[in-house]
Parts: sequence; C-alpha cells; structure tokens
Amino acid sequence: MLPRSRGDRPRPLPTLREGVTAPMVDNPDLSALLPTLRALCGEDGVIAEEAQRRTYDADGLTHHSAVPGAVVLPTTAEQVAEVVRLCAEHGVPFVPRGSGTGLSGGAMPHPEGVLIVTSRMRRILRVDIDNQYAVVEPGVFNLDVTRAAAPHGHYYAPDPSSQQVCSVGGNIAENSGGAHCLKYGFTVNHVLGMQVVTPDGSIVELGGTAAEQPGYDLMGAFIGSEGTLGIATRITVRLLPAPEKVRTLLAAFPSMDAGGSAVSAIIAAGVLPAAIEMMDALAIEAAEAAVHCDYPPGAGAVLIVELDGPASEVDAQFDAVTELCREAGAFEIRTASDAAERARVWKGRKSAFAAVGRISPAYIVQDGVVPRTALPEVLRGIAELSATTGIRVANVFHAGDGNLHPLVLFDHADSAAAERAAEVSGAILDLCIEHGGSITGEHGVGVDKACHMPRMFSPADLAAMERLRRAFDPAGLANPEKLLPTPRLCGERPGVRTEEHPLVASGEAELF
Amino acid sequence: MLPRSRGDRPRPLPTLREGVTAPMVDNPDLSALLPTLRALCGEDGVIAEEAQRRTYDADGLTHHSAVPGAVVLPTTAEQVAEVVRLCAEHGVPFVPRGSGTGLSGGAMPHPEGVLIVTSRMRRILRVDIDNQYAVVEPGVFNLDVTRAAAPHGHYYAPDPSSQQVCSVGGNIAENSGGAHCLKYGFTVNHVLGMQVVTPDGSIVELGGTAAEQPGYDLMGAFIGSEGTLGIATRITVRLLPAPEKVRTLLAAFPSMDAGGSAVSAIIAAGVLPAAIEMMDALAIEAAEAAVHCDYPPGAGAVLIVELDGPASEVDAQFDAVTELCREAGAFEIRTASDAAERARVWKGRKSAFAAVGRISPAYIVQDGVVPRTALPEVLRGIAELSATTGIRVANVFHAGDGNLHPLVLFDHADSAAAERAAEVSGAILDLCIEHGGSITGEHGVGVDKACHMPRMFSPADLAAMERLRRAFDPAGLANPEKLLPTPRLCGERPGVRTEEHPLVASGEAELF
Repeated sequence: MLPRSRGDRPRPLPTLREGVTAPMVDNPDLSALLPTLRALCGEDGVIAEEAQRRTYDADGLTHHSAVPGAVVLPTTAEQVAEVVRLCAEHGVPFVPRGSGTGLSGGAMPHPEGVLIVTSRMRRILRVDIDNQYAVVEPGVFNLDVTRAAAPHGHYYAPDPSSQQVCSVGGNIAENSGGAHCLKYGFTVNHVLGMQVVTPDGSIVELGGTAAEQPGYDLMGAFIGSEGTLGIATRITVRLLPAPEKVRTLLAAFPSMDAGGSAVSAIIAAGVLPAAIEMMDALAIEAAEAAVHCDYPPGAGAVLIVELDGPASEVDAQFDAVTELCREAGAFEIRTASDAAERARVWKGRKSAFAAVGRISPAYIVQDGVVPRTALPEVLRGIAELSATTGIRVANVFHAGDGNLHPLVLFDHADSAAAERAAEVSGAILDLCIEHGGSITGEHGVGVDKACHMPRMFSPADLAAMERLRRAFDPAGLANPEKLLPTPRLCGERPGVRTEEHPLVASGEAELF
Repeated sequence: MLPRSRGDRPRPLPTLREGVTAPMVDNPDLSALLPTLRALCGEDGVIAEEAQRRTYDADGLTHHSAVPGAVVLPTTAEQVAEVVRLCAEHGVPFVPRGSGTGLSGGAMPHPEGVLIVTSRMRRILRVDIDNQYAVVEPGVFNLDVTRAAAPHGHYYAPDPSSQQVCSVGGNIAENSGGAHCLKYGFTVNHVLGMQVVTPDGSIVELGGTAAEQPGYDLMGAFIGSEGTLGIATRITVRLLPAPEKVRTLLAAFPSMDAGGSAVSAIIAAGVLPAAIEMMDALAIEAAEAAVHCDYPPGAGAVLIVELDGPASEVDAQFDAVTELCREAGAFEIRTASDAAERARVWKGRKSAFAAVGRISPAYIVQDGVVPRTALPEVLRGIAELSATTGIRVANVFHAGDGNLHPLVLFDHADSAAAERAAEVSGAILDLCIEHGGSITGEHGVGVDKACHMPRMFSPADLAAMERLRRAFDPAGLANPEKLLPTPRLCGERPGVRTEEHPLVASGEAELF
C-alpha cells in the first residue's frame, strides 16, 4: 500500500509528434512484433511512440508506474486473441487495461510488454429484456449498461464509485463492488457468461444465459483474476428490474459506537438495505470542506441507509429503520424521497475520498473487510493506532458488509510521516485479518497487495491458486507479478519468506 | 442418460460376516494399502469385504454401477487428507461420496479405487447467528443445517428434494439447487468458505466469512466439480433470516401454453417468487394416482407459486400474482396460508418423480435448462417428439428458471421402447441446447452426461476445463471419467470424435 497524494492526476496528454515512428520501443522482441501488430490492429491501433505510451504508465494507483513497451487497442475478440497468441509465441508479457481507474495497480504496465487496452471495444451488442440480460464488449462503461437498460425499466446492479468511466471488463478483472453490494453482491453475482481469450490465444466461452451450466465454473475463477487468466472480450450481464421505490435516510449519531449499534440493530431486525454507509467525524469534516454537504453539525458519525424494492416493503422497512436509528441514539434523521433529495444525501459520501484532499496534503485509501460484528472493535483499534502514531485516519465505509475504507492522512513533504502513514495503513490490514476479515473488499490485489497475500493465506492455499494460474499461463506472461506474491517482487519480507514460497521447493517459482 | 426403473432400490444390506477379512480386495495395490488405511481410520473406518462394498456400488443413478475396490469412512479432515495422499502416492483412484443420492452417477465408485464416504463426518461445528453463517462437516444432512438454525429464526436456503438425507458435501459436489433456487440461487450462492483436501492430499482453505476475498475464487470452480478437484472437509454456509411470511398458490390452467403465459406475465411484472413450479396433465395424473393430491380436475397444467418475504410485500404481490393467473386463463386458484395447507399444495409436486412409477413400469428423469422465454417452444418440441415416437413424456419443472425435468416413460420389458425412450431423452437435451440452454440444471454431469459435454462446449472450452482439472489432479486419480468426456468413455460417438478431443493432439489425453 503506497501513498496516494493529491496532484498526481491528471497528467497532461502529450502531443502526438506526427511522422515520428522510431526509435520507439526499447524491447527488441517487441520492436520486431510491431509491423505484425499494425497489420492486425491498424496503424491507429498500435501506440509505439514513447510520450504517448507514457500516458498509460499507471492506473488509479499512481505510485506504481511503468511505461508499457507497446500499447495496442484492438477492436475485436479475434484481434485480442491474435495479439495474445503473438505474445505467447514470442515470450512477451501482456497486461490488459480497461479504463485505468483501478486502485490496486492491476493495470500497471510491464515495461517490456504489450498493454492491451479495450477502449475501442465499446459496443453494447444486445439488450434482451425478456430474458433480463445484456451482452457488451469489455470497454463499455459500467453506467452505460444501465443507460441502455433504463428505457426498459431495468438496470445493471454493480455500481463502483467510478461507474461513469470504469469499464465492465475492468470490473470483471477486479470483481468490483459498490455501495449497493450489501444487497446485490459483487460483479461476480451479475455476470452470466463471458467470451475470454486465454493466455495461449484461444477464444473460450464461459457460462451462458441458462440458469445453470454443467462443468467447472471457470467464470467464478476468472472474475477477479486481474487479467492473469486472460482477457474478457464479450460479457453477458444480468439486468435487474428497477425497484418500484427507493428511499434514503441520513441519520446523525453522537459517536461511531452509536452508529455501529444502529447498523447491528437494522441487520438483526432482518432488514436488508440496498446500502448502509457510514462516515466518521473527520470524513464528515472533509466532505463539508469540499462540497458543503450540510450534514447535521456535531455528528460523531453519519449513517446513510438506502432501501429499495416494492413500495409496500420499502415503506414498512423505512419506518422500522428510522425507529431503530432513534433507539440507537440518532439525534437527527433526514429522509429523502425523490432523486434530488437522494443526490444531496449521497453528495457528501460520494465525494469523501477526493474531499480528504481538503484537509490533508496526501492520503492513503485503504480497503479492508471485517465481519460486521467485529466492526466496533476494529474501529476502536484504528482509533488507537491513530492516537499512538499521531497519524489521522478518516473512516468511510460500507457498514453493512464490513468493508472499511480508512483514509490515512499525512503530509508527503514529511518523509517520516509518510512512512508512519504506510505503517498505520498496513497495521489496519493486520487488524482486519486478525478479526477474520480480508485485505481487500473491492479494490483488488494488483501490484499493491500481492505481497500481503501470505498474511491471509497459507502456503498450501497460495499453491492452489498458483496451480490455477500456471494451468492457464505456464510461461507467466499474463499480467505477471500481479495478484500473487513472487519472491522477486516480495523478496524476504516477513510473511513472504522465499524458502516458504510454495513453488520454490519444486524449483518452479521463477515462472511467476 | 440411462433408464431409471422401478425396483432398483432399495437393495438389501448384506450381513457383515464377522471374522472374514480376506480375500476381499481384488486390486493388489489397494490390498497393500489396507493395513495403513485401517491404522489411519480405525477398523470400522475401512470396508474391504465384498458384500459390504457392494452396497456402495451406485448412487441415485442406479444403472451405472461398479463395486468399489475399498471403502473408507474417515472422521476428520486429516484422515481424508492422509487417505488421498496415500492414493496419490500409490496411483490409486479415489471417488468421494456423501449420502449417495445424486442422480448423475457422480459418486459411482471406481472398481480399483477407494470410495471415500463422508457419512461419519456429521458434526455441525458452529452456528453464528450474528454473522449469519454455520460451519458444518461434509456429511451433515442438508435439512439439519436448517434445523440447527431454525430456533434462531434462520435457515439454509438450497433445498434439493432429497434434503432430508442428502449431504452438504454432496450438494457442493453437484452445486445442487431446489424448488426455491429461482429466488435464492444454487449451493454456490450460499457457501462462504470451505476447507478442502486437494488431490495431492494438501489441506487448503477457500473463501471465508468476509464479504469478499482476494485472489482467485477457487470456491466457484470447486463447487460443482463433482469430486474431481478434491473433497470438501469443512463447509461454511450462509444462513438467511426466515421470511416473515410465506404464501403459496395453486392455479389450474386448461393448457400448458396458458400456464406458461402466466409465468411470463409474473416475471414481466417484476415479481420474483421463491418458487414457480409447473406440472402437465400426465404428471398430474401420476401424482393423483400416487398421493391423491386432489388437484383441480381437468387441468392441462398446474402452477404452484410461492412468495416469501416481508408480509407487506408478500400480500401485495400475492394479489398481483392471483390476478395475473386469472388473466392468463386459470380456471381455479387455491391459496394456502399456513404450513399444513402449503404441504397439501406441495404434496403432488414433491411426489411427482416417484409417482410416475404408478403410470409406467420404468422412466428416465431428464434434467435440462432453457431460457425462460424458450419454454413454450421447447415444450411443443417435446410434445412433438412424444407424438412421433409414441413415447409418453410427463413434464414437471421449475418454470421460473427454465429448468425442465421431463419424465420419459417406457416399459423396460420392451427393449425397443427402452431404446426409443433413451433417444427421446437425448433429443430433449438437444432441444435444450438448440434453444441456448444447458444439458443439466441441477442433477450434474457425473458419469451420466460426460459424453454430452461436447454438444455444449467447443474443444477450446473443454480444454480450458481440462487445464483446471489437470492443474489439481495431474495423475487423473480424483473421480476419473466423471464430468468431462474421455476418449475411452465416449469413444467415437458423434460430437466426441477422438481426433477433436482437445488434449489428444498434444498426446496428453490418456491422463484423463
């Protein structure tokens, strides 16, 4: 987990120097491939000039970057397959990229490899309302699926905050969630079928529109595999009927403990809200400073609860939730019934990450999960970490499913503070693991947390994952050094001792 | 799909001849292992005597049978791991078995292998209502999970018809569904984590109780893998709060078309019932003959719709469903509100498979899936097949998710009729595939449909699955010849031409 500081983005787009075509690609193997890649994807489908390649050097995790050896922008599955086949044949690594909004560096390029960008594969191929699915290309923006289904009263449920620009293919790579995954689940719960290109360049169909498929469910393994098992080239997603009614409530509590007990009471009552989001005082302060969201003053915690479904159910549950919040100590409750009011309530929450820039020159966005019942204890642990290190931590999280997004604040001009912040950030992950949780809820592992994997998984667990990876990518060319720890990447760091690496014993570790 | 005829079961349990210990196991490799297996699992944990082994010769697909080389009944994960490790070391095949209720022969033994039976691993290890999960051993009966959770107002959703006796481990092997999987999904949607023994004898943890896990989702691949990737030894399942209200309605229609249009109207109205079951006239006749369920006389189709959830939602939707059924032509609608009335409505449906024995000496239970909108056309196709061949077909199905269970009736004394019935049964699968469906909805592939897989999947699709299998089971010892087609098993049958077998070209096919 490396710091993410203000001002990293946006970088200016370098001007294309027309007519300049060489010397452009440093890797001679790759240079030799360029004419074939151009014949395949067209002149405008291959980027070799360095300044242009540089614009792709990172995804949303900007502190990990590398200029890709070459960039290709295919328009068809066949082109993707052919590019991957060429890479396999010539031993060239490849990294898939959607919109580059990922927060774990899953799309960080390989300096000697090909970056395969899906931004020219943006067609919505089919919307079948009778059977409630849509078929899309991987570069399609997440929100555009809902836009295509909305005239028919349907929508696509997974809603990462970046949904206006993130791609469905990228969502698959990271198994993206969003504020509403408490009720609706993650991307994996909404994909029915996929056409994928495997690392040998084969085109394979996984899943389908039937309720159940025989054989191995490779879709589950593929979704969240961060490009290490191949590239999705056509995706069939489930569409849901838009809920009859949506109601949103904002409740202000004197403390996080009081807010937390409201969450427990709501879940214990058998209510399953579409979303339960929580922010602490520091996050509220940041949101006020940035977007003047006008949350109730003096709140130690703010809870946003959204209910959706049939009107009769929503109304009954809304009253119950309001009452439970009051019983838990809410001193102010606001309700929103129409879209404009809902937008006001959500404004502070949705701007929270960026808003933290108003109160701190730099910050780390952490992403961890704990069982819901462990939330109070973990939050107290984070507060203690903050108190003992002097590093401020703002908490914004999906309370319903225990997905924390602590924002660890520091001044990047103070290198000692930056180091302490990174330590606090890592210690928060340890807290999550100690409480039976996970090192990532929805941002993925990527390059960011690959070395953290042995904190969660035993050598046998990791060996099982590596077996799967190697089965599809024996040469280690598909997004290498992402997702799973490697001795080269993670060295002798605690928990990743080389001698314990599951494949070292058999002399096979160099493959990854 | 081979015929399943009356009278196959039950077989008398042979008496244990005390003191007889040899000669009992034919495979010399296996004989040599017996002392070690006994030291490991205890005297009563190893069955070597032939008459006793014979009682395990088939699961619910009784026409495929083989006497296992040996049977072991371990009591701990460590014993399972050690048995599997011994098998790996000595090149002995192993087949896992839960309660043996499967309908696709997934637990059919290997004559030279070890059958690993989980019936002595039946402890419910934990029920955590606050975090809504239970931890169980693989031999636990499906319904016992709900029984353990019920006092706390919770239940385990997957409900195969055999839920009183089928095991959770077996449900995982087959990714079992049930009447309520329209709303609640299959086993894969309700398992949070597993401890599994992989074919090399390693103990691996998959998933966990956190909302999301980093790394590859091997759980998805494992669930439904029919023991070919290993054996689940501890399972963490999600518990759901029992719905506030359940209401069930039985509607009688003059024809299947009318019933089908009611199903379409209900789904189009955005109602998601817990179950929508449909039976045709022949299935109703059988149920009447067997259990006198007293369904409305003269019905061409009967629809059972069950709604569950918050009372306010259920009541509102119940009225809507009643109205939609009337509009579609229902001539009689009965409603059930309490458990006793519900049981009466379900009685005919639940007894349908067995009841068919009343009107036919033998029958094949087929299991296929089609997109819901293709149901009317596929049902007409089945009627045509029946008319042209003279083979009667009774239809019982989960209408909401297009999961058909045609019962193909014949007289096993007439070998020509048996052959025609098998052909009709196969042709029904072809119909399902032609309409974008699947060759199995919930009964699995096992030995029964392995040779049908190339009808649904391309060589590249199958090669991807074989890659996964081989990664975990390079020697092909884990439940061999199940799930995926092999040249030896499927020979040169149409659709399984040996030269097209994905691994034949590389000379690797003999591994499977």
